[in-house]
Amino acid sequence: MRTRPLKVALLGCGVVGSEVARIMTTHADDLTARIGAPVELAGVAVRRPDRVREGIDQALVTTDATALVKRGDIDVVVEVIGGIEPARTLITTAFEHGASVVSANKALLAQDGAALHAAAEEHDKDLYYEAAVAGAIPLIRPLRESLAGDKINRVMGIVNGTTNFILDKMDSTGAGYQEALDEATALGYAEADPTADVEGFDAAAKAAILAGIAFHTRVRLDDVYREGMTEVTAADFASAKEMGCTIKLLAICERAADGASVTARVHPAMIPLSHPLASVRGAYNAVFVESDAAGQLMFYGPGAGGSPTASAVLGDLVAVCRNRLSGATGPGESAYAALTVSPMGDVVTRYHISLDVADKPGVLAQVATVFAEHGVSIDTVRQSGKDGEASLVVVTHRASDAALTGTVEALRKLDTVRGVASIMRVEGE
Amino acid sequence: MRTRPLKVALLGCGVVGSEVARIMTTHADDLTARIGAPVELAGVAVRRPDRVREGIDQALVTTDATALVKRGDIDVVVEVIGGIEPARTLITTAFEHGASVVSANKALLAQDGAALHAAAEEHDKDLYYEAAVAGAIPLIRPLRESLAGDKINRVMGIVNGTTNFILDKMDSTGAGYQEALDEATALGYAEADPTADVEGFDAAAKAAILAGIAFHTRVRLDDVYREGMTEVTAADFASAKEMGCTIKLLAICERAADGASVTARVHPAMIPLSHPLASVRGAYNAVFVESDAAGQLMFYGPGAGGSPTASAVLGDLVAVCRNRLSGATGPGESAYAALTVSPMGDVVTRYHISLDVADKPGVLAQVATVFAEHGVSIDTVRQSGKDGEASLVVVTHRASDAALTGTVEALRKLDTVRGVASIMRVEGE
Repeated sequence: MRTRPLKVALLGCGVVGSEVARIMTTHADDLTARIGAPVELAGVAVRRPDRVREGIDQALVTTDATALVKRGDIDVVVEVIGGIEPARTLITTAFEHGASVVSANKALLAQDGAALHAAAEEHDKDLYYEAAVAGAIPLIRPLRESLAGDKINRVMGIVNGTTNFILDKMDSTGAGYQEALDEATALGYAEADPTADVEGFDAAAKAAILAGIAFHTRVRLDDVYREGMTEVTAADFASAKEMGCTIKLLAICERAADGASVTARVHPAMIPLSHPLASVRGAYNAVFVESDAAGQLMFYGPGAGGSPTASAVLGDLVAVCRNRLSGATGPGESAYAALTVSPMGDVVTRYHISLDVADKPGVLAQVATVFAEHGVSIDTVRQSGKDGEASLVVVTHRASDAALTGTVEALRKLDTVRGVASIMRVEGE
Repeated sequence: MRTRPLKVALLGCGVVGSEVARIMTTHADDLTARIGAPVELAGVAVRRPDRVREGIDQALVTTDATALVKRGDIDVVVEVIGGIEPARTLITTAFEHGASVVSANKALLAQDGAALHAAAEEHDKDLYYEAAVAGAIPLIRPLRESLAGDKINRVMGIVNGTTNFILDKMDSTGAGYQEALDEATALGYAEADPTADVEGFDAAAKAAILAGIAFHTRVRLDDVYREGMTEVTAADFASAKEMGCTIKLLAICERAADGASVTARVHPAMIPLSHPLASVRGAYNAVFVESDAAGQLMFYGPGAGGSPTASAVLGDLVAVCRNRLSGATGPGESAYAALTVSPMGDVVTRYHISLDVADKPGVLAQVATVFAEHGVSIDTVRQSGKDGEASLVVVTHRASDAALTGTVEALRKLDTVRGVASIMRVEGE
């Protein structure tokens, strides 16, 4: 057992950082035993140095994060600031000055993962980021290590707790989107500005990271199709129930049937109640993985929060410290497959489409003709109506997003179609 | 990229071994890219050399496993023979002759894990065994790496697919044990001699392995309390339903409230339908983990079968090969905590007890007095009866197994208690 401690610099001491510091102190003996050497908190970079932080030696606190990562005696930098800058520059500087890095920064990893991995590799250092996706749920390590001998075909997950809380509330109470969002905000599950969550930006960053790891291919944030869940209505949930489904905001990373291309997307979708993801309640996250040999796997747990995220950060910290002691590094970026990342138009799935139509003979025939002309095969149709107004619910067989888009454009031009009330993808069947 | 291949010796070429060999061939390019060097199947030890094995070069096949592991040029030995001997001696010999080992052998790891880990460490080699517990589900790696910075308090899992298939069948159809077992046998989910599964021996081996990793403490197979599920009846399922529960055969590894001792056990138990483990159907496995910081996690997937088990073996193979290339070894045994492993009597849980009693006044008072005398607090009681016969269902608050055992012994001595129809633990609340 080495007695000289490994030195850790903590960048950020908010909800996650303070929990990391707390566990490093309270579980110091366990961490020492598991790493093979003591770990010491060598500095904590914060924006507001005067705030009292229980259990953290004020002498360690600094506002000069750059000086901290440049000290030269830091073994591991833990970055829990979030956002692009100054996090990106600090991480790169850390590698240049001999430190490995543990990060929880999904936005940065999704946007600049390739460059950061390259910097880590150039300096022969580790870059670990289990906490960046699905909080405490071990996911990055299982995907890139446990399944390293397998071929992953699909990763489909609920990776944003805020939106799952809102959708679960809508499902269980019949509430509308705004009412459920208000409750999520009041309970602290949604931020004052919920845009990043409800518009799917947060989930899209995670999808880019997951797709990159699953398919050994660089997937940029811009490659991820993104559609938020603010348009989901109580009526959509009623339709979903009639189909034996619920609605979740899903991040879906898929290998195409030909094996040569992949897609990544985030959007609300109907999934059957019998699917394991359907029973993921409240703010929990879960990721369903399908691979050639393993079959279907699911990983479930809390996707956010100070303690869960700290658990993931500390697991990485132990691994990175162990690597340093043995003089090795863990797996870096694996992008050798370099598959084509296809646009959304190439995605093939099923669709549930609600149309407001004129209640007169021949409408269904007209609508069905439009579907047929675009090569979209209809599975079921349900008509209901009175007083000259009617609704038509069409569920399709599998078709490409491009074909469906063309179909909907043509439907909108029909005189007898008053409006397209909703289009929802149907997944997980 | 190194071009000299890493050499792999495969011990056993049954359902799992043949699948490992097949994937090594069909996914050779991917494995090369992920490892950083090619892997080559250098020999396959089998009992019946004359059997035709599709895709395996007959020149590689040998009946002399000992000579194969002694060759000296083998980098990794993959042991998928199962059982204690000759697997144990072959693994030890492999370490002595310079190889690392990937094993799927739960029985051997549960019985001799400490000695095998010591042998690996002595020779500075890796011993990986993700496939030994819950097949394809990444579990060993998440527990010993992802959660390395956390404190695990409980691991509760469905780790035997055969028994879960049988219990799920009983639950969904109302079938009795024998009928459900017969169906499992006919469908190939149960072996001709199902003892290892239905009596809980298989699950107990997995519980010992999981408890050891979760608590950084050696847990021997003998330390695991074991109770099979052959006595579970359709009536038990009816009782469970009345409580909003189902019945699962659970492996439960728990840290005591005082933190200084742990227990490991396998037995059927009622769990609420709202618990994530309750919805694990058919032959699937799932393991629920509770830790201080991460909170509640669940890992779900196929627990057996050639392909899923091969996926876990190959994930380990990639990791071990990478370690060899970097000159490092992965985490070995971690038993530093050396917590006391307490006997079953110390386990604290709730109980559901069905009694056949005389239908006359005062019986409930008598029964309640016995519970009180043994310090077991009653939560609910339900009486029903006619024609002089009655049944009494008691659900207790949390009590020690020792106190419950004392209570039941005393109940059996009461004249008014005709019999104890069933005792079932209630978990996961």
